[in-house]
Amino acid sequence: MNILIVFAHPEPRSLNGTLKNAAVGFLEAAGHQVIVSDLYQQQWKSQADGGDFLQYNNSQRLIVAQAAKEAYHQQQQSPDITAEQEKVLWADLVIYQFPLWWFSMPAILKGWFDRVYTNGFGYGTGQRYGGGKLAGKKGMLLITTGGDVNTFTNRGIHGNIHDLLFPIHHGIMWYTGMAALPPFLVHSANHISETDVNKSIEELKERLSTLDTTATIPYYSVPNGDYDEKSLLNENLHLPKASLAIHTQL
Amino acid sequence: MNILIVFAHPEPRSLNGTLKNAAVGFLEAAGHQVIVSDLYQQQWKSQADGGDFLQYNNSQRLIVAQAAKEAYHQQQQSPDITAEQEKVLWADLVIYQFPLWWFSMPAILKGWFDRVYTNGFGYGTGQRYGGGKLAGKKGMLLITTGGDVNTFTNRGIHGNIHDLLFPIHHGIMWYTGMAALPPFLVHSANHISETDVNKSIEELKERLSTLDTTATIPYYSVPNGDYDEKSLLNENLHLPKASLAIHTQL
Repeated sequence: MNILIVFAHPEPRSLNGTLKNAAVGFLEAAGHQVIVSDLYQQQWKSQADGGDFLQYNNSQRLIVAQAAKEAYHQQQQSPDITAEQEKVLWADLVIYQFPLWWFSMPAILKGWFDRVYTNGFGYGTGQRYGGGKLAGKKGMLLITTGGDVNTFTNRGIHGNIHDLLFPIHHGIMWYTGMAALPPFLVHSANHISETDVNKSIEELKERLSTLDTTATIPYYSVPNGDYDEKSLLNENLHLPKASLAIHTQL
Repeated sequence: MNILIVFAHPEPRSLNGTLKNAAVGFLEAAGHQVIVSDLYQQQWKSQADGGDFLQYNNSQRLIVAQAAKEAYHQQQQSPDITAEQEKVLWADLVIYQFPLWWFSMPAILKGWFDRVYTNGFGYGTGQRYGGGKLAGKKGMLLITTGGDVNTFTNRGIHGNIHDLLFPIHHGIMWYTGMAALPPFLVHSANHISETDVNKSIEELKERLSTLDTTATIPYYSVPNGDYDEKSLLNENLHLPKASLAIHTQL
């Protein structure tokens, strides 16, 4: 399949760089087509602003969603944005790889979503949460963290990693139609041994060899009619689950 | 009190700009000292990289946490980082104001946290989650969203806004010692009427007039001994609550 890796780490000699190189090598050897968007290497512009829209005249008030929609439909986007949108459309699977900084992605990757998933492309397409322009594609997070695995559980001090990643899995991937594969996590990244790096690479290869058969997170779906006209989960699906878990069929 | 507003919107003529100006005017009239870090106006650098550390030599592998710690303790940080750290230390309350983009903050603000809350300042201080260099200070999110208020409830399609903001309230504010006031939210920002803007401004002034008396989110605390030596919530505090809610005393 066609696989895009969006890579957000400033140092190619890092653990993230090692994992990324291993992933590319393994995927290509398995017959996949792979493109890497190395955001630091590309000197990706992080902040969304009026400069993203070639038609925008800064004597007027900038309304981002409106300017983005016009630019998208009139081919007036900054060329770096269009190039990334084309890579996403080409891909069957997008792997987002980054170190977990402050319980989210580095700014340069947040800016990739802010600038690439624009009105008309990422949202404002008439469908969302299972529908949308990217429906049928899959996404997967590949994340290193500085904490022990147990600190990312319900009782762990940081909270459950799946809750922490809900805004990305549900609010970004699933919103745009992309089904989220379970994240691949490498914990305690700041003091990992060479043995454990090699173990992680083997586990990563195992995950990458089962991309077709691994179940995606079964979020409820707008195209399936799971939400009502007010965008509330249908009453008959209001199972006795708490909080974020309510949005999955598990 | 001393109040820092970290403002992340590209357009001063926006709803966010209007709310910020109203907040500054009201707070100053009430006798507070106010400083605004207007990140777009300051042309804040979003991406954390080796350029943040004056001592860093790029012939060596960049280990961000390590380079940041050395730079912090040896006064080798990029001056823009130090300037923001000094504002945070000066402040009794920090208001983080932004439009909710992809269920989180704009990249330019994420880059403010990535670059300013460095090892030695935001973490790696020997204490966290209630302790840390910013203990005793308060933080508050001031957020505009594009969705209806009901879509940010448990059954609402986006999920409960308090769950979506947990990584910021708990993982950034509380981690560094800052107690989180309830967020001030303005929904349906893309098609808000002038009447509703004025109503939001009045509600914001009301919130800003009760900063001292409004309760902060009562997360469990490391200095209070709520977590054990493995950073797991103590067994006797393991109440029958699900998921993220386990970390609050509510």
